[in-house]
Amino acid sequence: MESKVVTVSSPLLPPLDELVPYLRDIWDRKWVTNNGHYHGALEEELRRYLGVPFLSLFSNGTLALMAALRALDVSGEVITTPFSFVATAHATAWANAQPVFVDIDPRTFNLDPGKIEAAITPRTTAILPVHVYGTPCDERIDEVAARHGLKVVYDAAHAFGVEENGISVLTRGDLSVLSFHATKAFSTIEGGAVVCREQAMKRRLDRLKNFGFQDEVTVVETGFNAKLNEVQAAYGLLCLKHFEEGVAARRKVVEHYRRHLGSLSGITLLPQVEGLKAAHAYFPLFVDAEKYGHSRDALYERLRDHGILGRRYFYPLISDFPMYSALPSAARENLPVAARAAEQVVCLPLHSSVSEEDAARIVELVRWRT
Amino acid sequence: MESKVVTVSSPLLPPLDELVPYLRDIWDRKWVTNNGHYHGALEEELRRYLGVPFLSLFSNGTLALMAALRALDVSGEVITTPFSFVATAHATAWANAQPVFVDIDPRTFNLDPGKIEAAITPRTTAILPVHVYGTPCDERIDEVAARHGLKVVYDAAHAFGVEENGISVLTRGDLSVLSFHATKAFSTIEGGAVVCREQAMKRRLDRLKNFGFQDEVTVVETGFNAKLNEVQAAYGLLCLKHFEEGVAARRKVVEHYRRHLGSLSGITLLPQVEGLKAAHAYFPLFVDAEKYGHSRDALYERLRDHGILGRRYFYPLISDFPMYSALPSAARENLPVAARAAEQVVCLPLHSSVSEEDAARIVELVRWRT
Repeated sequence: MESKVVTVSSPLLPPLDELVPYLRDIWDRKWVTNNGHYHGALEEELRRYLGVPFLSLFSNGTLALMAALRALDVSGEVITTPFSFVATAHATAWANAQPVFVDIDPRTFNLDPGKIEAAITPRTTAILPVHVYGTPCDERIDEVAARHGLKVVYDAAHAFGVEENGISVLTRGDLSVLSFHATKAFSTIEGGAVVCREQAMKRRLDRLKNFGFQDEVTVVETGFNAKLNEVQAAYGLLCLKHFEEGVAARRKVVEHYRRHLGSLSGITLLPQVEGLKAAHAYFPLFVDAEKYGHSRDALYERLRDHGILGRRYFYPLISDFPMYSALPSAARENLPVAARAAEQVVCLPLHSSVSEEDAARIVELVRWRT
Repeated sequence: MESKVVTVSSPLLPPLDELVPYLRDIWDRKWVTNNGHYHGALEEELRRYLGVPFLSLFSNGTLALMAALRALDVSGEVITTPFSFVATAHATAWANAQPVFVDIDPRTFNLDPGKIEAAITPRTTAILPVHVYGTPCDERIDEVAARHGLKVVYDAAHAFGVEENGISVLTRGDLSVLSFHATKAFSTIEGGAVVCREQAMKRRLDRLKNFGFQDEVTVVETGFNAKLNEVQAAYGLLCLKHFEEGVAARRKVVEHYRRHLGSLSGITLLPQVEGLKAAHAYFPLFVDAEKYGHSRDALYERLRDHGILGRRYFYPLISDFPMYSALPSAARENLPVAARAAEQVVCLPLHSSVSEEDAARIVELVRWRT
């Protein structure tokens, strides 16, 4: 009966008929990658839409993060959150720095600003916070960084289009890194970007993604290849046109979930932040097994058995993966709030194809009588 | 009069009308990246076409090279050639190893097997040779590696489809790395692959390009994101169908160049290797200024002034770029053959859109009476 499978995310595909004319133009130009026409157009459109000074496209968010850390000459130790997608820490490692995990705030699930200073050592060069689920980080993080002369790179993979009191959260810190993966509200299939304040930094990022070339015969950085091609840039231009519809569709689903799950005993939802323009990237539930009467995993499996493919985002903690678990900062005692969040979280399906009927069915499954 | 511009390379674009049905299918599947249907199909088709045991796709050749070095746990020092695209050395640096430059063979322009042993130290873990312009490396490189217990990763960016006596050069060494950039004979716009011998190694490479995930909740490698998406995989399937036509068109241009430039005083061409199935990736000329009567740069500029955009591939040497030039192995005295090649080389336009008329015009410009 309930055979329809609902995935946690689903790509917002722009209509193919709208894409084909762009492709025809790319084919006519015979210019398919390396800073082409659509690449430039997408950078400009995104810069305007997001209200940010400069932006450099990348072929995915992880490479954008690696380049961002490199562009700030980060080394030694980087303070970050264990409650994120594993790419946050991996990018640090690839950029030749060591992640130092600090616990999160139990309300926002973001890096706890009050716990950062205790983790700073003479080797610390930067803080890498994540606006997890699109909830803006506490601005005191920037104050701590300023006080200690540290760089701040925001992992803003969930924060595309997020504004607080009319200002993009992407304008905070030294750099902000976006992901445009297919699971995201705005997508270039795979893709990402770094947002920065100055033209000189944009030039450096542009060089880093293109092997470090300054001109045809001059290489000034140990760059790599993280160029976004023309087909994906064109896809992005179309996605941007349809982005607001997509967010509106997500908002309806979020409102339905909130209305019916907001006061459910043992279930905690994301905080609602005043003055926030949300992008509704994810809809996590945090399950207190004792009060709810069932464990998170029991709920996750119940949903799955009914074709609702939720995801335990983010579980396990990054600090529990074998390449990080021996670090002193990875100790469970150091990260009690994050450890609890990882044990409690499950994200419900959230995308434009979640119908009212799907949402109602999901709500019924979560409202699980003991 | 000679207003038509001829670029050094031009992408072999599969007909858009052939691509659209593939795109429609991808849109129907709503699966646009992360090891999708076309990704699997392209891996299988390439494996068969190239006659190799296993192959893992990547989003570009540089990331494939970084992953290959990581997959072999390379560290310390890696012996390589300075006469290559800068990505060869940069990938080594990103994989946390130091390139050690060894001079090239004056006939093949590949790493000189006779000079490798003198560069081996206790810190050496691997050799990274390049089949430059698609000319196979000397097999004695593998013998040296075996004798010293070193890994061998071939940068085979120019060697797609190249066979020697019926055997793919991609079966040599531990791993071979391909590039499918738009400038290449076979392309996925941006893209690349690693060829390996064993299933277990393919699994490791597959994990490395997907953040190190072994399953949904287990991360076993410090991976990154180097996934090739479905649109580019479909593009690759079509390019593969048209690859032989593309090579045939290139072969005609090569034959024309060879016929008219082969005995020109002061001009050296690539060696013709017996038993070689070539892919005709590049057509370099090496200009001996004294005998030819003009310098390489004078010829390069003469071509450019007539709309013929040749390229000085590879100039400067990688070892001359600022991040490597202070290494002891980067000293000019250590690399006399490579230094001369870099000063003498210019690549002529070589792609399917070079007409007979273009080729004739180019030949006339190169046959430059003093």
